[in-house]
Amino acid sequence: MDSAFDQKIISFVGSNEGLWKVSKIETREGEALPTVKTIDIHKKNIETDLNEGWVLKAFISNLRYTNREEKTELDKNSKPLGQPEYDRAAFIPLKKSDEWWSLTQDERRKIFEEDSKHIQVSSKYLAYVSRQLHHSRDLGQPFDFLTWFEYSSAHEEQFEELCYTLRKAEEWKYVIRDIDFRMYK
Amino acid sequence: MDSAFDQKIISFVGSNEGLWKVSKIETREGEALPTVKTIDIHKKNIETDLNEGWVLKAFISNLRYTNREEKTELDKNSKPLGQPEYDRAAFIPLKKSDEWWSLTQDERRKIFEEDSKHIQVSSKYLAYVSRQLHHSRDLGQPFDFLTWFEYSSAHEEQFEELCYTLRKAEEWKYVIRDIDFRMYK
Repeated sequence: MDSAFDQKIISFVGSNEGLWKVSKIETREGEALPTVKTIDIHKKNIETDLNEGWVLKAFISNLRYTNREEKTELDKNSKPLGQPEYDRAAFIPLKKSDEWWSLTQDERRKIFEEDSKHIQVSSKYLAYVSRQLHHSRDLGQPFDFLTWFEYSSAHEEQFEELCYTLRKAEEWKYVIRDIDFRMYK
Repeated sequence: MDSAFDQKIISFVGSNEGLWKVSKIETREGEALPTVKTIDIHKKNIETDLNEGWVLKAFISNLRYTNREEKTELDKNSKPLGQPEYDRAAFIPLKKSDEWWSLTQDERRKIFEEDSKHIQVSSKYLAYVSRQLHHSRDLGQPFDFLTWFEYSSAHEEQFEELCYTLRKAEEWKYVIRDIDFRMYK
């Protein structure tokens, strides 16, 4: 497209050789992805013809639901990806239903936070879980969101608890594809 | 990238031959674009090497600020682009400041609607102005939004009034690039 575009795009490459080794793949909702041994993030638009594996693309965007008070709270504990002591990662691509996307902003916000407490729940874990949300739907990709988490093996149990809590909330009734990849470095 | 992506992208092509003939170009904020004689919308990702003119790209996305009550009101009068009797068009690419994008959802919504009444003002004009918002920022493009309007020559004055009202509102203090192209068919 052009170089500004190519640098805005983030490519998630599932293949057989890379930094993050896949330890578990669980297809929780919808169609599976081909099994891969490694997953890596490349901060550019990768045009690969993979014989096996896959490339999923997304971009980082502005906040869509968070209010100022919540952002202040989140920012207190948030750490960027790439903390050297975080030796575990999770890649969870998600797709929500057409019903979700036909809701208006106030309706989505209510389900996301007032009903499901997505921000409130997550903020308790940010001291030891780094995360980054990537938007994929507006690129015509198979998932709406590519979510990536990093944490230390010492906090695996807490990360499971976070996933469990978010998945049983009202918001998850709108999730129609959910694949959970766990990795180690 | 891939065919799903190519079909999600909408390309705005400024050149010297096309359906919509440019009658006026006014650079209101920021850097101008090269002068062109026509502007057309192509519902795909056009990879052209233009000798002159330009191609700007964007996508249509979900609603970002509108609540249910407002959407119900907007939908009452909204008509899609392409009404045969609408012989005038406006293409207004816009870029907002970094300050705008660092605001949280509640802060942007307050400026957009509670302070500037963007939706409330616009809804009065939808009976005779068709419009489509296209998002461009997440593609690393030079503008954040590519806005397109169509109306009949009988309502040119009302369209000027709409533009005037939106531009003098609080929201416009965050607009750092604003080029106003007017066209006829």
